[in-house]
Amino acid sequence: MPWSLAPSYGSPFVMDLDHGRRYGTIEDFENFVKLAQMSPNLHHSGGTICEPTDVAVNKRHLDMVYAHMRYSDRAFLGSITAPERAEDSIAMCRILFGADFVEQNCVIMGNFNTTSPLVIDGVTSRGIRTYAAAGQGTIHLPFLLGGAVAPLTMAGSLAQCLAESMVSCAITQLVRPGAPAVLASFISSMSLRSGSPTFGTPEPALGSLAMGQLARRLKLPLRCAGNFSTSKLPDGQAMQQSMMSMMSAVQSGANYILHSAGFLDGLLSMSYEKFILDTDICGALHAYLKGFEVNEDTLGFEALAEGGPGQHLFATQHTLRHYQTAYWDSAVDDHQPWETWDEKGGLDAATRANARWKAQLAAYEAPAIDPGTDEALREFITKAKDAAPDAWY
Amino acid sequence: MPWSLAPSYGSPFVMDLDHGRRYGTIEDFENFVKLAQMSPNLHHSGGTICEPTDVAVNKRHLDMVYAHMRYSDRAFLGSITAPERAEDSIAMCRILFGADFVEQNCVIMGNFNTTSPLVIDGVTSRGIRTYAAAGQGTIHLPFLLGGAVAPLTMAGSLAQCLAESMVSCAITQLVRPGAPAVLASFISSMSLRSGSPTFGTPEPALGSLAMGQLARRLKLPLRCAGNFSTSKLPDGQAMQQSMMSMMSAVQSGANYILHSAGFLDGLLSMSYEKFILDTDICGALHAYLKGFEVNEDTLGFEALAEGGPGQHLFATQHTLRHYQTAYWDSAVDDHQPWETWDEKGGLDAATRANARWKAQLAAYEAPAIDPGTDEALREFITKAKDAAPDAWY
Repeated sequence: MPWSLAPSYGSPFVMDLDHGRRYGTIEDFENFVKLAQMSPNLHHSGGTICEPTDVAVNKRHLDMVYAHMRYSDRAFLGSITAPERAEDSIAMCRILFGADFVEQNCVIMGNFNTTSPLVIDGVTSRGIRTYAAAGQGTIHLPFLLGGAVAPLTMAGSLAQCLAESMVSCAITQLVRPGAPAVLASFISSMSLRSGSPTFGTPEPALGSLAMGQLARRLKLPLRCAGNFSTSKLPDGQAMQQSMMSMMSAVQSGANYILHSAGFLDGLLSMSYEKFILDTDICGALHAYLKGFEVNEDTLGFEALAEGGPGQHLFATQHTLRHYQTAYWDSAVDDHQPWETWDEKGGLDAATRANARWKAQLAAYEAPAIDPGTDEALREFITKAKDAAPDAWY
Repeated sequence: MPWSLAPSYGSPFVMDLDHGRRYGTIEDFENFVKLAQMSPNLHHSGGTICEPTDVAVNKRHLDMVYAHMRYSDRAFLGSITAPERAEDSIAMCRILFGADFVEQNCVIMGNFNTTSPLVIDGVTSRGIRTYAAAGQGTIHLPFLLGGAVAPLTMAGSLAQCLAESMVSCAITQLVRPGAPAVLASFISSMSLRSGSPTFGTPEPALGSLAMGQLARRLKLPLRCAGNFSTSKLPDGQAMQQSMMSMMSAVQSGANYILHSAGFLDGLLSMSYEKFILDTDICGALHAYLKGFEVNEDTLGFEALAEGGPGQHLFATQHTLRHYQTAYWDSAVDDHQPWETWDEKGGLDAATRANARWKAQLAAYEAPAIDPGTDEALREFITKAKDAAPDAWY
């Protein structure tokens, strides 16, 4: 089953341990594209990783698409906030990949939210039609907060999710039969004490598993869940909620998992430290999905025979042959004895992640791009920006 | 499938945010029995929740068994460190429950580790025989650190685990056919960089799933995994590793999950704060295992019809009928808006858990016990303690 993990999407704020919570900028956006590119555990560059609030609303899509093209060599999501911004995203792909290639291949996707309950508004449906007409991919996502825009019983949330996503998928086939469409699910719960949305809780985890079954029944690819949390810090709550949500996403058989890295604060903030911790979870899940082989070598009876009962296996041929590949190795987790950990400063996971994202950005190198292509992209952006005054709504 | 969650077991150290890491005492032990009793999410009082290192090695089992009997009304594990201590544990059960009742019913279990690889030593096998002869339960656990005392490939670890646990189970049937025996698995991985044991990693999570299948094939109950972590703090690493391990335990269909609360530092430390965070995970897993119902009421079409397309569902009859039961509610997670959270001090999950275990201990009330029984238990303990000098090894 092909699967693809991408950074979180759509937060107006960013956070790090040094500067706390603040509005995202294009520099933050570029940093996250670079951090994603550095992670071997993600497959996809994502879309609006954070809102670059220092760029005009009607122009920021140009800088975001360019950043994905220039600072990553992975696939990415284009703009969906207006049909003409969707057109710009696809036009830039034609410059990067060539118009003929784009006509024949899906090179970009747009992620479209329904206007739940039971509505798909004009901006959304026109955006969907723009991508579909160009033969490009679309994700059809009901963002269902149970009790707010969907029944709060899981069966009802799922039925509504399925209906809305199927109708939205169907629009693409009216425009261009065969245009790629992805069924999607984003179901959250709410706190009974405050009425606030909650993420990383057990009911939506069950919902993800059921959604996987529904998608397989329809033979449609599925976008589902992610490393969700309502925590305001990259702490124990954040990682416990994320792991429950993310394991269910993986176990549902989801093919595309947006929000795989950085999600905090109920999706209002992208966290630099959580991004690092989440990509590490993604690495663990790669190992988890590999399963394990059962054969004469992996059964390792020779290893037990070599030393015999009561003897340790550190130096057996079997151990020496397998020790470098037997177990996944985390980039941030601490496994040292307590004394060693204490002598080295007694750091928590968030503090180690803080050091790691800085080291990753310092070590980042941009992938190569054809200079003529790069110039053509920049010219397109300049022309598009000059053609209209800045708009901030 | 019956399942039972119990606190972690066997740590020499305890930790809390106020006083850091230190050797456990009988006061710590009693505190953890009380905290477990206060949690609606645990089923079982556990055994050696932490080592009460201020009590002589040859006498501490008496105080531990008494604490489980006096401060909890749940089932618990008896001593296994010497056959006579196993006898004492069962003798105290005869005082509490009556000798006839104990002869006819399993009221206590002992948790026995094999001496891997491929050895069951004399102390262990004599202990197993003591419990089995009394018709009491035994858990048969290979503690397999891959590469150290088992092949580090998962198939080999599992084959050895199955063989050792089955042989250990079989001992009970030679002593008393029908004596209750529990198949068990505790498989860890190791860090390739340091050679240290690791916990909460993906390979042992897969191993748990396979072990569940093997146990069902044998029609034996299974003890498996727990809230494992190598972290030294109740931080993001701790809760991410715990959730991966614990979800696999639950998904394996394990019937008894020791180490469900408090496990840190690769099992060397019991943490007060992690205990609270883990019991909260246990609560989430209760909700997860409940699944969800699909019927006319839970499909909630009436809720969507009531408002119609585009209208929120906050005040529908369906929402009002279900909002108190639709979603599991965490006792420690924060779901408030960022501003509210920040105004209230911007606390992380560990700090909230610190306040909660103190409040729980302050609110604790001991369950009732018959005064005559209590006196008989105390007399038994005094007599046993007076019969031998303190031993500290």
